[in-house]
Amino acid sequence: MHKEHRATPPLTAPDEVVVFIGRIRTPWLTRADCPRNVLRAREAGGSARVEIDPVYRPGLANLSAYSHVILLYWMDEAERDLLVQRPSHADGPRGVFSIRSPARPNPIALSVARVLSLNESTGLLEVEQLDCRDNTALIDVKPYLPTIDSVPGATADR
Amino acid sequence: MHKEHRATPPLTAPDEVVVFIGRIRTPWLTRADCPRNVLRAREAGGSARVEIDPVYRPGLANLSAYSHVILLYWMDEAERDLLVQRPSHADGPRGVFSIRSPARPNPIALSVARVLSLNESTGLLEVEQLDCRDNTALIDVKPYLPTIDSVPGATADR
Repeated sequence: MHKEHRATPPLTAPDEVVVFIGRIRTPWLTRADCPRNVLRAREAGGSARVEIDPVYRPGLANLSAYSHVILLYWMDEAERDLLVQRPSHADGPRGVFSIRSPARPNPIALSVARVLSLNESTGLLEVEQLDCRDNTALIDVKPYLPTIDSVPGATADR
Repeated sequence: MHKEHRATPPLTAPDEVVVFIGRIRTPWLTRADCPRNVLRAREAGGSARVEIDPVYRPGLANLSAYSHVILLYWMDEAERDLLVQRPSHADGPRGVFSIRSPARPNPIALSVARVLSLNESTGLLEVEQLDCRDNTALIDVKPYLPTIDSVPGATADR
């Protein structure tokens, strides 16, 4: 497979809806400002502020028992039909399911992040720095469970 | 917080759409048959078969370089407005963002799974056993990257 590949026909059929439960505030005001990945974002320093909308704040109860969370967020500027891409970090084309590009059939990004502070009543969750644009829509917060989520010996092609 | 809590008003406002990119085939034919969690599912043995729809199969290129994947799937039978729940494994109510219940504002489940086999042309990805119902809709496959996804020392309240 030697070039990028777009799905045919365009992937526009809606199947289900996601709701936005809050916003992620970062120092990166536009997509062009964003660090290339989350490791670069952490090197830049600072922290990201996750703002949970009022209606969803009761769901933060008990989260303080966890050191890390999994955040799912919606990359609203990403293309959704690019199934084979040429990432800048790679030496050739890559299938979308083998990379973490925000451009994917469902533009859902996933980051594991250390929790720095949590205020259940104001809905503010401060985490280590993220690589997404300021005001990125949040769709889920999950507790990170090392027994099922951590695989230190997993092999990866980079 | 001493009882379950539902969001008010009902969370029905659509924000964005997700598309289904395939199905997960498991031995559990109904929700009632499903193991309580993914560790129980693995104890039951066997494997889960992820079937990627034809249009999305080009996206599987290069995935064979990874030993593990992150699967996101849509729990279509789950309630979406239950922000505080009483899980059977806990001694009291829990905020939805502190548990991995499928019932959440966006009913997206996440599992890290070892890849057992992959056939890019038939779109079949066999992984270690999962705890979801047969024919659960798949919404994403991501490569598992231990440098950012593995936190063996994360602390968890259970």
